[in-house]
Amino acid sequence: MQARALNPEENFIESEPYYEITGDEIAIFEAAYQNKLPVLLKGPTGCGKTRFMEYMAWRLKRPLITVSCHDDLTASDLVGRFLVKGGETVWVDGPLARSVRAGAICYLDEIVEARKDTMVVIHPLADDRRALPMEKLGTLLEANQEFCLAISYNPGYQSVLKDLKQSTRQRFVALEFDYPTQELERKIIASESGIAPDLAEKLVKFAHMTRNLKGSGLEEGASTRLLVHAGKLIKSGVSPVSACRSAIAQAITDDSEMLAAVQELSSSLF
Amino acid sequence: MQARALNPEENFIESEPYYEITGDEIAIFEAAYQNKLPVLLKGPTGCGKTRFMEYMAWRLKRPLITVSCHDDLTASDLVGRFLVKGGETVWVDGPLARSVRAGAICYLDEIVEARKDTMVVIHPLADDRRALPMEKLGTLLEANQEFCLAISYNPGYQSVLKDLKQSTRQRFVALEFDYPTQELERKIIASESGIAPDLAEKLVKFAHMTRNLKGSGLEEGASTRLLVHAGKLIKSGVSPVSACRSAIAQAITDDSEMLAAVQELSSSLF
Amino acid sequence: MQARALNPEENFIESEPYYEITGDEIAIFEAAYQNKLPVLLKGPTGCGKTRFMEYMAWRLKRPLITVSCHDDLTASDLVGRFLVKGGETVWVDGPLARSVRAGAICYLDEIVEARKDTMVVIHPLADDRRALPMEKLGTLLEANQEFCLAISYNPGYQSVLKDLKQSTRQRFVALEFDYPTQELERKIIASESGIAPDLAEKLVKFAHMTRNLKGSGLEEGASTRLLVHAGKLIKSGVSPVSACRSAIAQAITDDSEMLAAVQELSSSLF
Amino acid sequence: MQARALNPEENFIESEPYYEITGDEIAIFEAAYQNKLPVLLKGPTGCGKTRFMEYMAWRLKRPLITVSCHDDLTASDLVGRFLVKGGETVWVDGPLARSVRAGAICYLDEIVEARKDTMVVIHPLADDRRALPMEKLGTLLEANQEFCLAISYNPGYQSVLKDLKQSTRQRFVALEFDYPTQELERKIIASESGIAPDLAEKLVKFAHMTRNLKGSGLEEGASTRLLVHAGKLIKSGVSPVSACRSAIAQAITDDSEMLAAVQELSSSLF
Amino acid sequence: MQARALNPEENFIESEPYYEITGDEIAIFEAAYQNKLPVLLKGPTGCGKTRFMEYMAWRLKRPLITVSCHDDLTASDLVGRFLVKGGETVWVDGPLARSVRAGAICYLDEIVEARKDTMVVIHPLADDRRALPMEKLGTLLEANQEFCLAISYNPGYQSVLKDLKQSTRQRFVALEFDYPTQELERKIIASESGIAPDLAEKLVKFAHMTRNLKGSGLEEGASTRLLVHAGKLIKSGVSPVSACRSAIAQAITDDSEMLAAVQELSSSLF
Amino acid sequence: MQARALNPEENFIESEPYYEITGDEIAIFEAAYQNKLPVLLKGPTGCGKTRFMEYMAWRLKRPLITVSCHDDLTASDLVGRFLVKGGETVWVDGPLARSVRAGAICYLDEIVEARKDTMVVIHPLADDRRALPMEKLGTLLEANQEFCLAISYNPGYQSVLKDLKQSTRQRFVALEFDYPTQELERKIIASESGIAPDLAEKLVKFAHMTRNLKGSGLEEGASTRLLVHAGKLIKSGVSPVSACRSAIAQAITDDSEMLAAVQELSSSLF
Repeated sequence: MQARALNPEENFIESEPYYEITGDEIAIFEAAYQNKLPVLLKGPTGCGKTRFMEYMAWRLKRPLITVSCHDDLTASDLVGRFLVKGGETVWVDGPLARSVRAGAICYLDEIVEARKDTMVVIHPLADDRRALPMEKLGTLLEANQEFCLAISYNPGYQSVLKDLKQSTRQRFVALEFDYPTQELERKIIASESGIAPDLAEKLVKFAHMTRNLKGSGLEEGASTRLLVHAGKLIKSGVSPVSACRSAIAQAITDDSEMLAAVQELSSSLF
Repeated sequence: MQARALNPEENFIESEPYYEITGDEIAIFEAAYQNKLPVLLKGPTGCGKTRFMEYMAWRLKRPLITVSCHDDLTASDLVGRFLVKGGETVWVDGPLARSVRAGAICYLDEIVEARKDTMVVIHPLADDRRALPMEKLGTLLEANQEFCLAISYNPGYQSVLKDLKQSTRQRFVALEFDYPTQELERKIIASESGIAPDLAEKLVKFAHMTRNLKGSGLEEGASTRLLVHAGKLIKSGVSPVSACRSAIAQAITDDSEMLAAVQELSSSLF
Repeated sequence: MQARALNPEENFIESEPYYEITGDEIAIFEAAYQNKLPVLLKGPTGCGKTRFMEYMAWRLKRPLITVSCHDDLTASDLVGRFLVKGGETVWVDGPLARSVRAGAICYLDEIVEARKDTMVVIHPLADDRRALPMEKLGTLLEANQEFCLAISYNPGYQSVLKDLKQSTRQRFVALEFDYPTQELERKIIASESGIAPDLAEKLVKFAHMTRNLKGSGLEEGASTRLLVHAGKLIKSGVSPVSACRSAIAQAITDDSEMLAAVQELSSSLF
Repeated sequence: MQARALNPEENFIESEPYYEITGDEIAIFEAAYQNKLPVLLKGPTGCGKTRFMEYMAWRLKRPLITVSCHDDLTASDLVGRFLVKGGETVWVDGPLARSVRAGAICYLDEIVEARKDTMVVIHPLADDRRALPMEKLGTLLEANQEFCLAISYNPGYQSVLKDLKQSTRQRFVALEFDYPTQELERKIIASESGIAPDLAEKLVKFAHMTRNLKGSGLEEGASTRLLVHAGKLIKSGVSPVSACRSAIAQAITDDSEMLAAVQELSSSLF
Repeated sequence: MQARALNPEENFIESEPYYEITGDEIAIFEAAYQNKLPVLLKGPTGCGKTRFMEYMAWRLKRPLITVSCHDDLTASDLVGRFLVKGGETVWVDGPLARSVRAGAICYLDEIVEARKDTMVVIHPLADDRRALPMEKLGTLLEANQEFCLAISYNPGYQSVLKDLKQSTRQRFVALEFDYPTQELERKIIASESGIAPDLAEKLVKFAHMTRNLKGSGLEEGASTRLLVHAGKLIKSGVSPVSACRSAIAQAITDDSEMLAAVQELSSSLF
Repeated sequence: MQARALNPEENFIESEPYYEITGDEIAIFEAAYQNKLPVLLKGPTGCGKTRFMEYMAWRLKRPLITVSCHDDLTASDLVGRFLVKGGETVWVDGPLARSVRAGAICYLDEIVEARKDTMVVIHPLADDRRALPMEKLGTLLEANQEFCLAISYNPGYQSVLKDLKQSTRQRFVALEFDYPTQELERKIIASESGIAPDLAEKLVKFAHMTRNLKGSGLEEGASTRLLVHAGKLIKSGVSPVSACRSAIAQAITDDSEMLAAVQELSSSLF
């Protein structure tokens, strides 16, 4: 069996992740970290928020515990619960309690997807109390010095029902993310997929075309991640036009007219 | 008792499934598999997506674990849960964890039907982390080299509530499926039901008539599967008109006027 | 204690049920059974679908396991669950798993009333895989040769929310049922209730009057079953007018004007 | 401790309940009982449906098990469930299973209030199968000869959401109940509360005045039960006007104008 | 530790509660109690319903068990449930079963807030059966002679969703409560807070001003309880204007214009 | 492991919290405390309600137990529940029961977010009964002399669904909070972040500009807490413009036009 299982708090990022700096995001994250202020990352899918967190975890030498939030994620999922094992009831810390104890960086991805009680359980951790009430244990857990809380969300998706309340957001230092510059994105694609720079440049051009269609029939343009996917398929021998269709066009839309239009754009490039 | 029970990870497809190639779908799936990219199959019901997965599982020599998704399918159903057995609590892996450990192909059929937490649990498996967070076990399971994730959905059915979010779809290489060509479909029906080619051709013609009615009173036309059903009934001695009524017309609609119209089409053919 | 408890898979129909053939329904059901295709029965309440299933179970000499579906019926109710008995956890098969193992006919009555996960659990049983994934046991149960799946629904009741999806219905051979012919219905009533043929004929006339009111104030006309009820009350000494009021009119509507109109119809006959 | 606990199936009605016949309801109920047909009682609150059931239970010498249905009543509440006692899991029959085994009359009061699965669990009991599927036990319980199923509902309250489906109602012999005649009601009140006949007559007049206001500001008029309440208060020394206000007017409405109007009616009588 | 825990059925009111009679409410309650009829108290918040129940419990020398009803209160919360203790399952009576056994007065405060099954569980207790079906125990508990059921609700708050059904209300003798007369209210405030009669009179005047604003921007006027609160703050040295603002104005509204208006009223008085 | 766990009732505030008095809030809270009246704090997020509670807890020398309320908080979460430990069932007090026993100040933050049953469980604690019914234990817990109940909510956020009912609010003495005066706020920021008074003054000016935009595109202006965050980032070397963007502008809005406008305001100041 080759699958490897590890404890979340052992999840140290051992080698420097590939990350290209785009502004003062590292300085502000570090200032927030020194002042024990929690951080909120905003931005579209696939633009590098998760990679940035991996980079900061490596830089700050702290384990990174990521939780992908969803509709059914409750406070208990984060804090922990009692489990019956061998007739005995044992407490099992959730990822948030683990992070608080171990001084890890806890990254709650797409926080607004979670149930409302999860928002509230992070409130005392996100102000100067820095404490996690573990009500089922009947204890109040004061955070380790190194503990750091980060959350992310994509403002483009928010509806009235799934919004960050002011009483939550006014606890965080906020960083906004976007797609990298054309130059930088070309470099990233070539580096991650191994294709030639001119092909990478064409993929970036193609991505910009789709990003310009955002709001005119496309919900979102092609992310940097999709360009890397297309590069990898090309590298494996798939034709650029086929790769753009499967890795990019079909991945961003189901609309047949839009697919035809996007396909035409790719044909004009390759 | 003749019913046979087997472990899902032993579900190797032993003999080559009958599959007719329609384009570059096999090459793209193999390139995605080599690059450890997850795959998304799109297309209408009964057009061969499940058969394609069986074919690729046979070709890649990996066990195939299929999960039919539904409204109540939760992340725990996929990842696993604790069960009490003989006073002792034991962990039972769900089909996704089994696949991750065994290096199987995990095929989540009609993924958008599942609850939202299932979408999120596959996110870290569907990017370059390739890890499954098993929160109740408190471990992070890194996927076996051979593990492959595939999902399917039918774009024709999607509503606002049941749509694939961009943050999910922009992780997959997407393949679009459709009904086979007329020539190919005739071949499939004759081969699977054992009826004569000219009868198979008439069934294909009948199917095309119903497919042209899609949107004008029919939600969906007759799938290849239904043509095979009709062929089998005919082979067992049912008259072609009766077989078309029971296996095709009554199976695709309840509307009495539409039933009469479709019945007239079949009478004109047989 | 005279109540008798038996295992569902012992539910063989021992004596031939009273069933009057109306078309080629028996031939088509047998052809579907031989080809291992699942069957869908459509039609209004009380027109004989359940009786037909009893007749086919008797004819095919297979036990019949019927499940009346409802809003809260889940996949676990069909597949099975773990129960704690004497400190030990034991698995108890649900009616679907029992049928699959025993090669019984499993008849899911009013399938669209069930929760969505039940639809999906029957998908792999309803195509050529003929396998039941038992996820809590971690096994895949391949169906016995004799196993047969049948479902029913009443198209007249379906709403947008409770409809059979194309991906479900395009797996079944469909048979449509309706009320018997006038001649046949008279015969059935006389035979089941023991009243004289002329009285039975009047009841059938009365039923046709109510069926003609369907859509003009009546949701549904009187079913054959209700005519049998009225016949039995008359046989026990209740006057025909009283019997029609209690067994038919009051059973099909609460509307006082409609009740008066229906009552007048019965007075004109008896 | 004077509170007395007894088993539901021992609930034989020992002395003849006070019941005044209003039509052929007894003859029809007995004919239905002889033919093993289930019975549906329709009518407004407090008009004597429960008393009629007590009377029939006494007359037929069967125990009476009554279940008041509500929004959260599930099939398990009726059929039974496993309970852990002393480390051992034991099955506890619900009131419906108890009735089926003991040959009791099971009376489901206000059936439409219950959850949908309860409707369905009574279907096989309410046709000629007369069997109760106990899915958690894995048995099919065939009803005792004497078992009788009766349900009630108040058509005046039904909404689209809470209606008796045709597939349910077309299984029952239906009896309609209403308030007793003026003469009879006077007799009932005098007999149950012990007040003089002329006072009872005034109360009946008062009730008729309120019943005439149904639909013009009153949801429902005063039931026979409320007249008995008022009679009892008067017998205990409360003035008739005060008794009518507390036992009748305030019990049927909160609207201040309607209260004033109703109060004026009572002042004109007493 | 000074907190004192006692069994609900020991909750005898030992000293006469301060209660000012306003009409024939005591006589009617006693007549209902003698005739074993249940009682329904109607009226606005803070007008003395709870105090009246304490007074009647003292007068009738019965323990008083109060349950504040809410959205999630189920029948099990009232009747009781099984709990596992030391490996053994024991039954724990809920407050209603305790009252029925001990012959206590059970007071269900704001009954319409509870879930629908609670309404139904009190039905057999609220008619001449006076029995509590304890379905999980499989017993029918006949009430002790002294048992008395009382419920309350505030008609001013009711919506369509939260209304007392006729089948429930037509089981009770109903008493309507309102604020005390001006004279009486002055007496109550002076007696409960210890302030001088002229200050108490000003507070009553102020309350009447706010009660006149009900419907014109205020949902409800100041209750007697709030006047006692203001009196106590004044007695502790807070200025009358501040006391009226904190104990009354801010307690009844958040609207800034209404607050200013109410504040002006209080300034004109003090 | 440096994380520290403590019992909630040991949570005494040891050193005087930094709190600037703004009116008679301390006198009124103390008068309410002496008279055993519960207190309701109203006001916007981040204006100092939590700090005020810490200050009063320090001043009154009582432990402070804070519960952040949310959509899924039930009465059981506050009162306590049975847990199975080592085969034995033990009762674990919730934070409210702990407070009642220990004579702590129990502060329920954003009470209206909680489920409805929590509102009702505090009713008997919030009137002169001062008792907590612990229904699962079957006891009534009378509060310790020192016990104090305080709740908070933000009137600006309330919707029809999430409002404080009159029957709840008319039990509390209410205190309204708002942002501190300009002078005071400058002092607070300089003291908490360590930046120079003139920079603090500019931050306060900036905050007032955003507060004036409330209702014209901003849901809420910058709170005092956010100004302290910005001050800390500046102190750590981040430029004032960057600090205002990340700690304030991005924290209060996602709207790109509003962000540009707010950014311009900050550029004009720094």
